Amino acid sequence: MKKIAKISEVRKYVKNMKQKGKTVGFVPTMGYLHEGHLSLVDVAKAHADVVVMSIFVNPTQFGPNEDFDSYPRNIERDESLAQRRGVDAIFYPEVLEMYPGNDLTWVTVDKITNVLCGAKREGHFKGVTTVVTKLFNIVQPDVAVFGQKDAQQAAVITQMVNDLNMPVKIKIAPIVREKDGLAMSSRNVRLSDDQRQKALVLSRSLFSIENGLKNGRPLLEMINEAKNEIILTDGVELEYLEARSYPGLEPAIDLNGSCLIAVAARVGDVRLIDNIIVIG
Amino acid sequence: MKKIAKISEVRKYVKNMKQKGKTVGFVPTMGYLHEGHLSLVDVAKAHADVVVMSIFVNPTQFGPNEDFDSYPRNIERDESLAQRRGVDAIFYPEVLEMYPGNDLTWVTVDKITNVLCGAKREGHFKGVTTVVTKLFNIVQPDVAVFGQKDAQQAAVITQMVNDLNMPVKIKIAPIVREKDGLAMSSRNVRLSDDQRQKALVLSRSLFSIENGLKNGRPLLEMINEAKNEIILTDGVELEYLEARSYPGLEPAIDLNGSCLIAVAARVGDVRLIDNIIVIG
Repeated sequence: MKKIAKISEVRKYVKNMKQKGKTVGFVPTMGYLHEGHLSLVDVAKAHADVVVMSIFVNPTQFGPNEDFDSYPRNIERDESLAQRRGVDAIFYPEVLEMYPGNDLTWVTVDKITNVLCGAKREGHFKGVTTVVTKLFNIVQPDVAVFGQKDAQQAAVITQMVNDLNMPVKIKIAPIVREKDGLAMSSRNVRLSDDQRQKALVLSRSLFSIENGLKNGRPLLEMINEAKNEIILTDGVELEYLEARSYPGLEPAIDLNGSCLIAVAARVGDVRLIDNIIVIG
Repeated sequence: MKKIAKISEVRKYVKNMKQKGKTVGFVPTMGYLHEGHLSLVDVAKAHADVVVMSIFVNPTQFGPNEDFDSYPRNIERDESLAQRRGVDAIFYPEVLEMYPGNDLTWVTVDKITNVLCGAKREGHFKGVTTVVTKLFNIVQPDVAVFGQKDAQQAAVITQMVNDLNMPVKIKIAPIVREKDGLAMSSRNVRLSDDQRQKALVLSRSLFSIENGLKNGRPLLEMINEAKNEIILTDGVELEYLEARSYPGLEPAIDLNGSCLIAVAARVGDVRLIDNIIVIG
């Protein structure tokens, strides 16, 4: 596996691969890899000849009071995991390589970035869409894979790629969960054992809504029940639990078409998100 | 020469050319071609094997009270001129092909878009940077050529390409002028004979500043003289005449480095721009 820190080097690597007739799959990550990320590698490998993974904790998608500094990092561990899963090249640039300091350009997606996480994390999606555009322009992949765990991010990236006619196919891979149901996240390592148990209320609430829907119970009633259960869980601070159309992210009243049920909460100082998509 | 209206078709054309090992030069225009545009084709041909020209009067870069509807159009004339100059393919999409109607994504450049034309034409550069990004993603050129006539646009596009790591080289071609000095513009055809004469005050002012600088006269004094001459010209309404650093577009006080001297004015209802770049 190649380990590349420079933009010019990764461009050269990809150019070389393309000249050999190979297609390139891309998995952008912020590192501290878990099985969720590695499942994206599997999807990339299924759709492309070589897989480039980026590992870059992107400062522009963190707010001033968010956890950029405490976001977990361990490049040696990541390298070993990526290599074992069959990644062909890791691109892990320094912040100054990506942002030399005179940047004035942003890629923004209106409307669907103003709800859910976007309503709570000002500027977050602007940072995401801008860095993903930069990474796409650097790596020039044929296919890029994102996780359904960040459902809003998946919708925003798909919208951006379509609107700007970006020459890349987007694949969205399903959420990978721990055995007890907790959605995998690099931030999970920052939970204490007690917090880890309490965090299960998020996935449990989503599953119970999913089951209720199957049994014909009304969505809003179940959402209110789930909200109450989360609010009553000591040490868990609910940010939102909402049903919205997907990927349009309009407030969902009935269940015609795909419906996203998404939750965000703080467990201690760790912000967690989870979601399910149900088909009406 | 190929004439292509569909995004999928121009992608196919370029892919085919690249598979043959050919490099692609790109000249984005709004049509109604004049010698200025055609000089861009010459530059593109000098730097690439095949030249694609787009002709698209982009609605998103016109303000609600601007001249989108009256902007001159004549695709047959343009085709003939482009073909004679050696363009290999013209891409002239319909508005709905470029904007299917559910667009939410913008590319914006801060700061340098808020001065000069950007201060007068709200949203103009946001429209330019977004459509140029789309066109770059569609055509995927190796080289793209813009005119120095739109000096601020050239600075903004260069900034955007650098910031977003776009895989394209930008070339800026010098202003082409009529024999009497008027900068070529598609909008010139909308001037009456009398307006056409009066419009010459713009280029004359710039040349006189350039000459004065060569003779060691102070910049600000000459700018004020030139402003007065334009203001006193009946039927010409000055929008701005400013000296700024180039390409940073900071207010220029002295002449260390490149300095842009740019003018915009309305002659009747026709908005004209012109500029010179002087080296301190």
